[in-house]
Amino acid sequence: MSPRTIGVTELVLRDGHQSLLATRMALEDMVDACAAIDQAGYWSVECWGGATFDSCIRFLNEDPWERLRTFRRLMPNSRLQMLLRGQNLLGYRHYEDTVVDQFVQRAADNGMDVFRVFDALNDPRNMAKAMAAVKATGKHAQGTICYTISPLHTVEGYIKLAGQLIDMGAESICLKDMAALLQPQPAHDIVQGIKQAYGDVHVAVHCHATSGVTFVSLMKAIEAGADSVDTSISSLSLGPGHNPTESLVAALEGSPYRTDLKMDKLLVIRDHFARVRPRYAAFESATLVDTDILTSQVPGGMLSNLESQLKDQGAGDQLQAVMDEIPKVKAAAGHPPLVTPTSQIVGTQAVLNVMFGPYKQLTGEFADLMLGYYGETIGPRDPQVVEIARRDFRKDPITVRPADLLEAEWDALSSEAAVLEGDDGSDEDVLTYAMFPQVAPGFFASRHQGPRSVALSVAQMEAQEAAEATAAPQVAGPVRYKVSLGGRDHAVTVEPA
Amino acid sequence: MSPRTIGVTELVLRDGHQSLLATRMALEDMVDACAAIDQAGYWSVECWGGATFDSCIRFLNEDPWERLRTFRRLMPNSRLQMLLRGQNLLGYRHYEDTVVDQFVQRAADNGMDVFRVFDALNDPRNMAKAMAAVKATGKHAQGTICYTISPLHTVEGYIKLAGQLIDMGAESICLKDMAALLQPQPAHDIVQGIKQAYGDVHVAVHCHATSGVTFVSLMKAIEAGADSVDTSISSLSLGPGHNPTESLVAALEGSPYRTDLKMDKLLVIRDHFARVRPRYAAFESATLVDTDILTSQVPGGMLSNLESQLKDQGAGDQLQAVMDEIPKVKAAAGHPPLVTPTSQIVGTQAVLNVMFGPYKQLTGEFADLMLGYYGETIGPRDPQVVEIARRDFRKDPITVRPADLLEAEWDALSSEAAVLEGDDGSDEDVLTYAMFPQVAPGFFASRHQGPRSVALSVAQMEAQEAAEATAAPQVAGPVRYKVSLGGRDHAVTVEPA
Repeated sequence: MSPRTIGVTELVLRDGHQSLLATRMALEDMVDACAAIDQAGYWSVECWGGATFDSCIRFLNEDPWERLRTFRRLMPNSRLQMLLRGQNLLGYRHYEDTVVDQFVQRAADNGMDVFRVFDALNDPRNMAKAMAAVKATGKHAQGTICYTISPLHTVEGYIKLAGQLIDMGAESICLKDMAALLQPQPAHDIVQGIKQAYGDVHVAVHCHATSGVTFVSLMKAIEAGADSVDTSISSLSLGPGHNPTESLVAALEGSPYRTDLKMDKLLVIRDHFARVRPRYAAFESATLVDTDILTSQVPGGMLSNLESQLKDQGAGDQLQAVMDEIPKVKAAAGHPPLVTPTSQIVGTQAVLNVMFGPYKQLTGEFADLMLGYYGETIGPRDPQVVEIARRDFRKDPITVRPADLLEAEWDALSSEAAVLEGDDGSDEDVLTYAMFPQVAPGFFASRHQGPRSVALSVAQMEAQEAAEATAAPQVAGPVRYKVSLGGRDHAVTVEPA
Repeated sequence: MSPRTIGVTELVLRDGHQSLLATRMALEDMVDACAAIDQAGYWSVECWGGATFDSCIRFLNEDPWERLRTFRRLMPNSRLQMLLRGQNLLGYRHYEDTVVDQFVQRAADNGMDVFRVFDALNDPRNMAKAMAAVKATGKHAQGTICYTISPLHTVEGYIKLAGQLIDMGAESICLKDMAALLQPQPAHDIVQGIKQAYGDVHVAVHCHATSGVTFVSLMKAIEAGADSVDTSISSLSLGPGHNPTESLVAALEGSPYRTDLKMDKLLVIRDHFARVRPRYAAFESATLVDTDILTSQVPGGMLSNLESQLKDQGAGDQLQAVMDEIPKVKAAAGHPPLVTPTSQIVGTQAVLNVMFGPYKQLTGEFADLMLGYYGETIGPRDPQVVEIARRDFRKDPITVRPADLLEAEWDALSSEAAVLEGDDGSDEDVLTYAMFPQVAPGFFASRHQGPRSVALSVAQMEAQEAAEATAAPQVAGPVRYKVSLGGRDHAVTVEPA
C-alpha cells in the first residue's frame, strides 16, 4: 500500500516568528525565502494574523496589506493562510457583521486563500459570520477548535464542536493547541472521532512545542487520520514555537505516511532563517522546554506576564497564591480556554482576587466575560460573581450572540479613518483603523517613510560583536530622570524592558 | 486493561551533561539532586562512563571512583548504570582480558549495577569478555546495538545482532542511537522484531534529540514493546542531548502506557539542574535542532570537529568536499557506525583524502581499522585500501578477535602505576592509569588538593552580572526600554541617530 500523503502548513512567516521573536520579523527578511517556500510543496503557508498585523503598524511601519500582496506575488503557487479571530477579526472586540464581511472580502481580494477561523471561547456563534463571509468569497473556511484541558472539556465535546463547525460550512477543521497542552492520546482520539463522525472532512492539527510533548501528538494525530499538520522550519522552531518541518519529513520516512515536501527547498528556507534569526536576538524567547504547563495548565506566556505584573506591584512573593487562584477563577468563569484574550482576563482577575480578596474588585473585561459579552462558555458561570459584575458595572447579562447587539458601524469607521493624516481612502485603511484605532493614526501618518526594521543590520551585528569583545553594555535597573518636555517637568523612570 | 509500565533511565548525571555541557559537571553540583533522583522511581540512573571518567581526572581533579562511591551512598535504592566500551573499557584501545575482569569487578564492588556494554563496530567479540565479566559479578549485563544507517544495515541485521548478544548472556538489549538517526519506523520495527524473536528480553532505547525526530521514535519503540527508554530531566535536555523526562511522563498520560515516575520529585530535579546549568554556560553547546544529519548522516559533533580541523589548516573552503568524501571512506572501511572512535578515524581520513588525494596518506588509526585491529565491520573493506595500509604500516590484516593478540598486562600496569607520585596502591588506581596513561599521573599527583570545579561559583555569577550591568553603555543598535511616565508605561526604542 502506498503511503498516505500528509499536508504540511509552514508557520515560519506567522506563528514561527510570533512565538520565538515577538512577531518582530520584517517583510524584507522574508522575501528571499519566498521562492523556496513556494516550491517546497506545502499544503499552505500561514503568513498573516492579528499579531503580525499589529506588529507591522506598531513596530515596523509596514503596511500589512502590502505585506499580503507581496506574499501573493512571490508565492503564486501556494495557498496563503491566515488566522482570524472570528467576530474579533484581528482586533480585540466584536465587530458588527458588515465589518466582518468587508474584512474577509478585502483579505480575499488581496490574496488570502485559507481562513483559519477561531474563537477564544469556542463559541460557534462568534465564528459563524466570518465563516459565511469566507464561503461567500469562494475561499477556504477552516473551522477551529481551541484545545484546552478542564473538567468539562472532553473528547466527545470537541468532536461535537467539529460537527457544529462543519454544519456552519467549515471545509476543514483545525485542532489548535496554543499552549502545548495537547497530549498524544487525546490528539489521537479527537482526530479519530472527527474522522469517524464526519467522513472525509480535512483535519489539520496545530501544536506548540513548549512542553516537549507535542511532536508525538502530531504523529498520533496523523495515525488517527489527520490530513495536515503545522510545523515551522527548524531554524525557527521548538521552545515556545513549533515542531521542526524537516524533522517531520524525517519522522515519516519509512512509515505508512509521507509528505510531499522537497528537502532541498527546506534546507534553503532553513539556512535563510538561520541567518536572519540572530539579528532579532533582542526579541528572542529564552524558553527551551517548559514542562510547568503540564502540571499547572497555565501557559508559559501567561505565567511570565503574571510574574512581571506582580513584581511591578511589589507583590512578587504572591505568585504561588495567584497560581492557586487561577483554576478557581477559570472555574467561576465557566472554564474558558486560557488563550488570548481570556488568559489575560482570568490572570489579571486572579491577581486582583489575591490582592484585594475574591471578586472585591473586577476588571471591566472580567465583568464582560462573566456577563456573556465575550460569548458562551462551556460551563455555567458562578451566579454570585455574575451578580457582582452586574451590580458593579450596571450591565445586564446577555445570552444572545454578542455581535447581535452592535449597531452598524462601517460608515462611522470610514468617516473617522478618512480624516486621519495619511489615510489613503481605501477600504483596507478603514479596516486597519477599525482593528487598531489607537495605533493606526500614527502608522498612517508615518507610512510614507517606509518600513523600519527593528532587527540589527549585518553591520550593526558586526559592530555589536566587536563591542561585546570589549564591554557588555546594560542598564542595571530602574533609573530616575527629571525630563523637561514642552515646558513641564516629568518624573521618568527607565529600566531594561 | 491497565496500562503497561515503561521504565525510565535518567541520563542527566552522565550523557545529559556530557552532551550539553561538555561533560564538565562536578560531583558537588549533582549531590543535592541525588535524594530526589533516588526517590523518583527510575528504572536506572546512568551516572558513569568513559567521558565522565576522563573529565573527572582531566578537568575536575576528582577521583571518578570516589564519585561512584558517592552515588552509591546517596542513591541506595537506585540501579546505578554505566556505559562501557566493551574491550576498550573506558579507554581508546583494546585491553587484555584480565584488565577487563579487574575493571568490571572493581566497578561492581564500588557500587555499579547495570553495565551497558557496546562496541563501535557492533562486533560481538569485542563485547563478549566484558559481558561475561559482568555476569560473573552477578550484576546486570546489557548488550548494546549501536544504531546507524548504511546500505548494509537492516532491521533484520539488528535483530540478528540482538540474538547474538542474548546468546552471549545479555540480560537486556539496548538499541542505542548516538547520532539522533533513529527514525520512528525502524525504531518500531527493530524493537518489535527483537521482542518477537526473543520473547520477553528487556529492550531499552536510547536516542539523542539533535535531529528533532527521536521523541516520536521513543513512542513508536514503546508501542512496539520497548520496556524502558532513556530521557534527561528537562532543564538539561534537547539539542544534542536527550528528550525531556517530564515530557515523556506527559506524553504517556491517557495512553496504554505509563511510567512510575513521581512528578513532584522530577520537578525538584529539574529545578536543581536549572540552577546549576547557567554556571556552566561557557561549555554549553549552541545547537538547538540540527537536521543536517538527516540528509548527510554525519553526526553534528563530527561535523563541527571537521570544520575546525579544516580551518586550522586554512582549508575551510574544503568542507563540502570532505562531506562528499566521508560516505566513500565509510564504504571503503566496510560501513562502520560513525561513533567514537570510528567517526574521528573516518572523518580525519576523509580530510587527508581531500587534501592529498585518495589514500595517499593514511593515519595509523585508519590503517588499523582497515586491517581489522578494531574488529570486524559489517561489510567487506576495500582490498586496495587494505593493501595500502598493509604496505605503509608493515602490519598484516587480522581476522581474530583483536584482544586475542594482546599479552597479559595487569602486572606491568600495576608496576607502572605503583611508582607514580600520589598513587594510592589500589586496583582502582591501576585501572585509572591503564585507561588514561597520559592523564592519570598528573591527576594522582594533584589528587590531594581535592576537586576543582570549572563552573562559575554563585558569587562569580553575581559579580559577572554586576559587571555587565555597570559597564558603560555602548549602544550599537536599537535598545528597547520600558519608560514609566505619568503613571503609564511606554515602550521606547533608542538607537544612534
